[in-house]
Amino acid sequence: MAAPPDLAIPGGLFARLRDAARPSWDRYVAHPFVKGMGDGALPEAAFRHYLVQDYLFLIHFARAYALAAYKADNLADMRAAGRSMAAILDLEMGLHVRYCEGWGLDEAAMAATREASATLAYTRFVLERGMAGDLLDLHVALAPCVVGYAEIAANLLADPATRLEGNPYRPWIEMYADPEYRTVAAAQIALLDRLDNARGGAARFDDLARTFEAASRLEAGFWQMGLDLAD
Amino acid sequence: MAAPPDLAIPGGLFARLRDAARPSWDRYVAHPFVKGMGDGALPEAAFRHYLVQDYLFLIHFARAYALAAYKADNLADMRAAGRSMAAILDLEMGLHVRYCEGWGLDEAAMAATREASATLAYTRFVLERGMAGDLLDLHVALAPCVVGYAEIAANLLADPATRLEGNPYRPWIEMYADPEYRTVAAAQIALLDRLDNARGGAARFDDLARTFEAASRLEAGFWQMGLDLAD
Amino acid sequence: MAAPPDLAIPGGLFARLRDAARPSWDRYVAHPFVKGMGDGALPEAAFRHYLVQDYLFLIHFARAYALAAYKADNLADMRAAGRSMAAILDLEMGLHVRYCEGWGLDEAAMAATREASATLAYTRFVLERGMAGDLLDLHVALAPCVVGYAEIAANLLADPATRLEGNPYRPWIEMYADPEYRTVAAAQIALLDRLDNARGGAARFDDLARTFEAASRLEAGFWQMGLDLAD
Amino acid sequence: MAAPPDLAIPGGLFARLRDAARPSWDRYVAHPFVKGMGDGALPEAAFRHYLVQDYLFLIHFARAYALAAYKADNLADMRAAGRSMAAILDLEMGLHVRYCEGWGLDEAAMAATREASATLAYTRFVLERGMAGDLLDLHVALAPCVVGYAEIAANLLADPATRLEGNPYRPWIEMYADPEYRTVAAAQIALLDRLDNARGGAARFDDLARTFEAASRLEAGFWQMGLDLAD
Repeated sequence: MAAPPDLAIPGGLFARLRDAARPSWDRYVAHPFVKGMGDGALPEAAFRHYLVQDYLFLIHFARAYALAAYKADNLADMRAAGRSMAAILDLEMGLHVRYCEGWGLDEAAMAATREASATLAYTRFVLERGMAGDLLDLHVALAPCVVGYAEIAANLLADPATRLEGNPYRPWIEMYADPEYRTVAAAQIALLDRLDNARGGAARFDDLARTFEAASRLEAGFWQMGLDLAD
Repeated sequence: MAAPPDLAIPGGLFARLRDAARPSWDRYVAHPFVKGMGDGALPEAAFRHYLVQDYLFLIHFARAYALAAYKADNLADMRAAGRSMAAILDLEMGLHVRYCEGWGLDEAAMAATREASATLAYTRFVLERGMAGDLLDLHVALAPCVVGYAEIAANLLADPATRLEGNPYRPWIEMYADPEYRTVAAAQIALLDRLDNARGGAARFDDLARTFEAASRLEAGFWQMGLDLAD
Repeated sequence: MAAPPDLAIPGGLFARLRDAARPSWDRYVAHPFVKGMGDGALPEAAFRHYLVQDYLFLIHFARAYALAAYKADNLADMRAAGRSMAAILDLEMGLHVRYCEGWGLDEAAMAATREASATLAYTRFVLERGMAGDLLDLHVALAPCVVGYAEIAANLLADPATRLEGNPYRPWIEMYADPEYRTVAAAQIALLDRLDNARGGAARFDDLARTFEAASRLEAGFWQMGLDLAD
Repeated sequence: MAAPPDLAIPGGLFARLRDAARPSWDRYVAHPFVKGMGDGALPEAAFRHYLVQDYLFLIHFARAYALAAYKADNLADMRAAGRSMAAILDLEMGLHVRYCEGWGLDEAAMAATREASATLAYTRFVLERGMAGDLLDLHVALAPCVVGYAEIAANLLADPATRLEGNPYRPWIEMYADPEYRTVAAAQIALLDRLDNARGGAARFDDLARTFEAASRLEAGFWQMGLDLAD
């Protein structure tokens, strides 16, 4: 299968941040947890642990879009952030809960689970970076998650080691490889360029690159937490 | 016409805050601007000035609910705050814009108008109080607006000085006297009691009362700005 | 007496912001309250009201530097913000309290006074702007206060209408015309240029200009509050 | 050697939080890294890695006190937070840098080192919790660090497995067992009780306990990072 085109816009902010953040980016998108989803060898307990923490992650992910709405300085950006928040809270979490039910996980139990250190680490980093900085800082911190999942799924589909037949992780891969999700990721990439222009990102590149690298590293830590069943 | 029942729950946080904040509360809800809407004597230029600033106000009001969603520590509160934000951005602002069109005001002109000092004063006070404090502080700062408008409209309907026939401000009065809006105000009152219990408000009453009084005073300043056509 | 040189650096961010904010800037620095200090005709009650509110203002001014320390992304900026905060809390407030004693005002009474709307308006605008934006937004919001007082005092000294002999406001004028205070103001101007370079201010100029104009207008409102003995 | 008395006030907030957070608290204060400092068996590379990350930690620890100053609602609390921040930036960091020099680490190299995930995790958790909540939430998140180090050092001195002679980590142990540091820790414990009363902590205990447990767990992660030389 031909690899789907890279979503990054050559020369755009996302492309430059990703280049600056290698090899942390590669360790994130090609993490053994990811490989294990591709070839189906990932232990199911690891995936279940990931699913529960991802449920808790989504709550703080929604808070990040609430913060983006608070930080926006125009109605269009506020509405976009509000729609993203509503999509997470009213749609994505519901889909996640139903998906988790298929793995024998019920919402009450997930909600009562303690956040793992790696979940705390990435989510609070994003939120704090966004609070201390501005909207551009916030969206750069969010980008590894939003765009990374699309890249991961696309890479898996293109990877000869990937086995879809009978692979219990196939629905996960197909969800994030879906054109609908890729549209969301592409919108985040376009937003970065728009904020880069509006908020003077050129002078801020080194600082933004540090944020992007740290977020990518913490995302890799999130996969590792799944693999290790770590708390 | 019989006065509609007071929305305040006797002994509840809102009732105690309002008691502690008199006479600032009374100066707000019985402001000459309000009286002028009731008897129809308010100059139309004052109302138009108010409408334009209220458009700008709504943007920051929506930001306050975004902040509430960020600050919420459970999904139910996040969703409630998100719905309030969406209601303002996607519904209330649209209604306001159409209503303003009836007064000869178009959205682009309103959006390009400078925020008056009184608009800056109330909105930023609410946002900053919410940021420095917690969710209870934020909702106490919001309450004079949310609940006050319902009380103002109900008072006007019950006031013998009010004249509805041919009154250009009648739709404003009826909108905020409507059961639908009163339900929103009652929900805010109930939320205050819930947060009061959850966030230890009893020990914090004096501090909360200062917030509520200041917010009421700044709301009175918002009416005065309309009357004075102040910038 | 020859006018002291303008502190603004031609072409620098402060100079451009001030140009963009006229006439709000002029209404602030040449406010009747200011003129009344110059010729000694300002009612003493107005000055006392101003002094009490300025005491309350200083508390939130210190909070703004605390916020700047939180938002700084390097040790030098953190230390500079920390020193400014300490200078306000440990030095400036003490000087202010002693100065106020000379006007018959004691600290406990000032601390128990309610913040006037104009005090709430300017201080919370600065804090909220700084929270929603970044360090550059915050320092632009602070600049009208820090630099404006130096310009006001210098203007008064150069103004033929100013009468220093027997003028009860002479110590105020001389304090802010003092080289020591002018050094503080010059440092704020230099800081704006440094942050402008580091945080991409060129693309953000229109937005920064709106912040600066609003802050200047709210500062004029602070003088007016003194004159009106407004709460 | 007799164990020094526990700093916790029986029935006080700190004591109750610590009880609720076991076994996470125990895993933090009795971490193998700690044991290794006590018996001198800790690899020096692990300690050096810890020292570098602790340098980076201190920067964000100072930011937390800046946030506390911003969030304080009275001058005494603002001044206390300001003094803590100044103590970290102007005193503690200098001592740390000189101490690190004795371990062959220079400041420029430490400042250029990337923050490890565990450093990001604990520091941003504290800052974000403080921002989303109020001053009590913030100080509960800080307490495991401030008080824990005193308890760790006291435990080590009382532990028969501890060997002080020729132990390269002896100065570390003695610094945090010193009465001067214990006074700082005791002040934090007293502050928690004061804020608990003022900010209604009784109703908030479960929530505060979650914060304290997470912070203790992330502190254990900080030791583990040192041991693993993790980035």
